[in-house]
Amino acid sequence: MSEFSLIYRHFKNLTQKHPLTVLGIGDDCAVSEVPAGCQLVSCVDTLVMGRHFPTSTCAHAIGFKSVAVNLSDLAAMGAAPYGILLGLSLPVALAHDERWLGEFALGLSDICTQFGVELIGGDTTRSDVLTISVTALGFVPTNKAILRNGAKAGDVICVSGEIGLASYALSSILKNECTPFQSALDYPTPQVALGQKLADYANSMIDVSDGLGQDLGHILTASGVGATLYLDKIPCHESLNQLPFAQKYQHIINGGDDYQLCFTISQDKFAQFQADFPHLPIYAIGEIMTDGGVRLFEYGQAVAFDIKGFEHF
Amino acid sequence: MSEFSLIYRHFKNLTQKHPLTVLGIGDDCAVSEVPAGCQLVSCVDTLVMGRHFPTSTCAHAIGFKSVAVNLSDLAAMGAAPYGILLGLSLPVALAHDERWLGEFALGLSDICTQFGVELIGGDTTRSDVLTISVTALGFVPTNKAILRNGAKAGDVICVSGEIGLASYALSSILKNECTPFQSALDYPTPQVALGQKLADYANSMIDVSDGLGQDLGHILTASGVGATLYLDKIPCHESLNQLPFAQKYQHIINGGDDYQLCFTISQDKFAQFQADFPHLPIYAIGEIMTDGGVRLFEYGQAVAFDIKGFEHF
Repeated sequence: MSEFSLIYRHFKNLTQKHPLTVLGIGDDCAVSEVPAGCQLVSCVDTLVMGRHFPTSTCAHAIGFKSVAVNLSDLAAMGAAPYGILLGLSLPVALAHDERWLGEFALGLSDICTQFGVELIGGDTTRSDVLTISVTALGFVPTNKAILRNGAKAGDVICVSGEIGLASYALSSILKNECTPFQSALDYPTPQVALGQKLADYANSMIDVSDGLGQDLGHILTASGVGATLYLDKIPCHESLNQLPFAQKYQHIINGGDDYQLCFTISQDKFAQFQADFPHLPIYAIGEIMTDGGVRLFEYGQAVAFDIKGFEHF
Repeated sequence: MSEFSLIYRHFKNLTQKHPLTVLGIGDDCAVSEVPAGCQLVSCVDTLVMGRHFPTSTCAHAIGFKSVAVNLSDLAAMGAAPYGILLGLSLPVALAHDERWLGEFALGLSDICTQFGVELIGGDTTRSDVLTISVTALGFVPTNKAILRNGAKAGDVICVSGEIGLASYALSSILKNECTPFQSALDYPTPQVALGQKLADYANSMIDVSDGLGQDLGHILTASGVGATLYLDKIPCHESLNQLPFAQKYQHIINGGDDYQLCFTISQDKFAQFQADFPHLPIYAIGEIMTDGGVRLFEYGQAVAFDIKGFEHF
């Protein structure tokens, strides 16, 4: 089966046509209208079998997650998602596995449909290692993108939801234990609507992919500030509360794969956002400080914990 | 070495900032201005070691070619290139090979500099197989993109330059023979300026990546037309003229990796283009016919030759 026919059979017409699309998949390039008053926002994320997801992960989840992680990056800018381009490298066994391909395509289609995103381009190649490289395109009103470098001393540090469950699930899977939380790892929900709402409120934003500690660290480095974090304020699933301190915060601070938003917002805007959007919960977990570094507290007590990747900032 | 530091050390500031870039590599996404009166053009191409280039290919050529093949797709739409996003999956040995990384980055930088393209996003992962997925973004004046489906009966079929040399070089390399034409395979020149010029002249266009026969076939299928091809009119390097008929046209018709443009243009516009741009040679190699299929002639005689991938159209 040629690259050409592979793409066509499984991926052409897989997603709904977006009104901005002039020409979708099937020519040398896609052609798209750009909404007036908007800037283009783009990112790429690559998932490799056995590295970014366990080899046991089902094809539907792989398709879903490969798009979800990219929409999460768009959300972290406050952008509206528009389309994706898929670079798919398939082992020969999977290239001829109609069921696997169908489920992968369905997973990809499901998340695209959920967020009104169109697959506008793709390239399928053979490789010994399943590798999925997705580029996501979106739009943000001109000069409204929320960057990592805008955190200011006094800002409230927030997250958009529970942190740590995907890492907890992964730790079970890697020990070949059953876990009721597999879906937290396999089916992250990119915070697309919230990200766009926050564009008028937040001073800085990132999505939590590598671990809350490391990702917050990117904000601190880019902004030239430090932080105080109240560990007990970080929302987490109740199952994590039953773990010893080190294990619990290993998942919450260093775990990653949460795809919640971490953002900083002035005290005033924090109150304003809560008043404007009472149905969109956001969680204050700390404060931006003038001094560099991160100070950790749990129930009012200073605590020590090694934040992964902290040597970088 | 973490993914983060890898990207930063080798790829941040690798290319010149493009005036349209608001925010380049280093945040969750890039943010870009879109020129007024233009549509966005996007494509993705993935290169896998041992499949799209021989394992002996030098790192500089891999970096160069992974961008060149994408700029060629933009050229085939008549678009001006703007930026690329790089999804790089590296074997651990290469991830720690500073020399390899440096040469790869330089190859990528060299072609980006040549065409005024900025690396605006990237993701580096580990994999057992070197896999390079590049997404290219460009812009075309609204409704000026040249598609595959515009060929009309009576159009002149043209190519932009010599066809077949990359395939000839590859055949030598695969036999472990030395070849003076390695650079035709490793360093294709995307026809970026010509593609943009042709936007006001051509009726249909594609770049020759899979083989002239197969790629022209995509135009014929999309346009619902057939073709007469004059094999002796196809420009080729003199070394190919010394090969037996079947071998010569195996490289020219079925070889691929040429990255010249193949386009169709009315008789009038063909003459007009030659008058307007006498310094930009284009080569008439056939004619679009109402009837489907492809008829081949050499020096006025009908000849038979199996076109690879012809079952698709």
